[in-house]
Amino acid sequence: MLELIAPLVVANNTKIVLLSLDGLGGLPRPETGRSELETARLPNLSRLASTSACGLIRHVAPGITPGSGPGHLGLFGYDPLRYLVGRGVLEALGIEFDLRGGDVAARGNFCTVDGSGFITDRRAGRISTEACIRLAERLRAIRLPGVETFVEPVREHRFVLVLRGADLGGKLSETDPQALGRPPLPVRPLDPASAPTAALVNRFVTDAERLLHDAAPANMILLRGFDQLPELPRFPSVFGLRAAAIAAYPMYRGLARLVGMDVLKTGSSFTDEVATLRRHWDEYDFFFVHYKDTDKAGEDGDFDAKVAALERFDAVLPEIEALRPDVLVVTGDHATPSILAAHGWQPVPVLVHGRYGGADAVDAFTERACTAGSLGTMPAFHLMPLVMANALRLTKFGA
Amino acid sequence: MLELIAPLVVANNTKIVLLSLDGLGGLPRPETGRSELETARLPNLSRLASTSACGLIRHVAPGITPGSGPGHLGLFGYDPLRYLVGRGVLEALGIEFDLRGGDVAARGNFCTVDGSGFITDRRAGRISTEACIRLAERLRAIRLPGVETFVEPVREHRFVLVLRGADLGGKLSETDPQALGRPPLPVRPLDPASAPTAALVNRFVTDAERLLHDAAPANMILLRGFDQLPELPRFPSVFGLRAAAIAAYPMYRGLARLVGMDVLKTGSSFTDEVATLRRHWDEYDFFFVHYKDTDKAGEDGDFDAKVAALERFDAVLPEIEALRPDVLVVTGDHATPSILAAHGWQPVPVLVHGRYGGADAVDAFTERACTAGSLGTMPAFHLMPLVMANALRLTKFGA
Repeated sequence: MLELIAPLVVANNTKIVLLSLDGLGGLPRPETGRSELETARLPNLSRLASTSACGLIRHVAPGITPGSGPGHLGLFGYDPLRYLVGRGVLEALGIEFDLRGGDVAARGNFCTVDGSGFITDRRAGRISTEACIRLAERLRAIRLPGVETFVEPVREHRFVLVLRGADLGGKLSETDPQALGRPPLPVRPLDPASAPTAALVNRFVTDAERLLHDAAPANMILLRGFDQLPELPRFPSVFGLRAAAIAAYPMYRGLARLVGMDVLKTGSSFTDEVATLRRHWDEYDFFFVHYKDTDKAGEDGDFDAKVAALERFDAVLPEIEALRPDVLVVTGDHATPSILAAHGWQPVPVLVHGRYGGADAVDAFTERACTAGSLGTMPAFHLMPLVMANALRLTKFGA
Repeated sequence: MLELIAPLVVANNTKIVLLSLDGLGGLPRPETGRSELETARLPNLSRLASTSACGLIRHVAPGITPGSGPGHLGLFGYDPLRYLVGRGVLEALGIEFDLRGGDVAARGNFCTVDGSGFITDRRAGRISTEACIRLAERLRAIRLPGVETFVEPVREHRFVLVLRGADLGGKLSETDPQALGRPPLPVRPLDPASAPTAALVNRFVTDAERLLHDAAPANMILLRGFDQLPELPRFPSVFGLRAAAIAAYPMYRGLARLVGMDVLKTGSSFTDEVATLRRHWDEYDFFFVHYKDTDKAGEDGDFDAKVAALERFDAVLPEIEALRPDVLVVTGDHATPSILAAHGWQPVPVLVHGRYGGADAVDAFTERACTAGSLGTMPAFHLMPLVMANALRLTKFGA
């Protein structure tokens, strides 16, 4: 798709705003038969839907629940089945670690092992973040020949390990046996180029075991999701857009940076984000604006909080419309139904508002209403081409 | 898709008519909120829609605006992303030049250069077609070793250059720098096999420059869209159909000939085309009938003229129904929304009428109504298999 689009891109001065409500989609609450979107009072989204082309977005494939990486890559126009981002890389992006090409990143857990070295708790009793910071500091003493190592605490028992050096390989097996009563596994290289890196990581684990022997319950580590930064086509080059990301949460800033967007400094609330949008309006053609509250409420299984988060978003929406973007898109990176209290596989509502998008019979921005929209149920990576067309930034294909 | 279909084809004596309304799809006019199809009085299309399976057709991919080539190849069952037709070839087809396998065709422009050879007008002030004919005649004096050259005027500043000979290669860069104040570029071969052809074309350009030196504003040429006839599976063989094309405009006759249809001699109006259809009814299994007026009005940005063109088509439709085709398809090769005054990327309504197609709730042939049709929004190249099935010309797949 990117190969098809890039040669068709033409210059224009139109402005595009892509609003991603994290975990937007939901499911009916059994008591009422109405989803979060169907329960919330959303006058602005309803009005916008009734003058937009609506539909549903599927980020990966039917039945597949997207993580935040694939969810956002899809929205940015990348087929998430083709462009894979490893868990270690995502974890590093999530703490805005300055990951560089060639670095190998892994997601780490502190864990508990017994006297025989068998795992008794894969999460070390979810130690406090403070303990995690202290123990990560201890692991920083480990020196490996020829590479720099970084140990970055994340939250509770989680940390990120990064190796930086020449000729590292990220195709490595995991040390986590995903079961109790067994010892951590040694790392094996999954391709020949990763063999020296595997030896380095095994040495790191041995040193860590020694340094942590008195730190129970966090007396050992597990490493998984080894990967290197993927080589992604750069979003601004592919689409010919000066592109900016506005996101209060580091993970989404990291994902935007991964595809080459400028990441704008902003505050911690959605109102801050909209102020940032307004302040930088003239400098960019494309804005990705991320709204986190919907996902947080959904993950907590808090239906009412998700309804409230949607209503808060709706109240701010007119401020974004007032900037008069040529194309305004409202959608999400995946569903987080409150009754599931987790990411879901359900397709997510989308609306594309612009002069040339056409409207359809949809007059509410809900899962059910959008099913009848003119956009149908489409793969997420088809969204950007559609948005580009609506912004009159694509020429025709073939004479 | 073609590889899947061909072995399933079985004989039958059913008749298929595919009516392609060029630029059929539209968009709501802001004043009324209704598209051209929603504004026109179309009693026959509405009646037909209410007893047909309806849907929308996407010719290339979401957001991608099809040119006439990809638009029609899709309707004929060919994936336009797999079967590419170069601009030079299309231009030659558009004037019904007898392009043969191995010929290299390019689209030519007369242009203006200043005393230093720098381009000052890429279209030579859009010289008259008469001037174009006269200057093309002048270029016919150019002789190249070992190849025949054809210079065919098209319209205003446009002409077609064709080289015919053994072992020519069509992978050539363009001479048009797409900017003023720069000299035309030399042609470069884009693969080794095209190197001798590049040398011949450069020699042609040098000779043209000399022959045109006193012909300002048309004192130079630009060449682009070099290509050779693609090797397309032949439509009559793939689908086992005696297939005829009826089109008043040369471009569409050329596209039909490209896939191996018989092109029937017809007049310049749609009524002429329908008379041709009636006259040849017994000789063919499949008729592609092209209606141009909708596209012309849309390209002119003339909403009312497009409405009138749709109503004229609707009035003639019963004459086609009276022939009692087993499968009657009404659709288009792309949208040409009047408010866009150009080809658009929007999916295009389709109806498939036949004994076994099933109907759905759709009772109007409009963009919005067809969104809810039983065919959904489908790639254009899925249409022919569906039509073949409706004509009981495909056996089942697998035992």
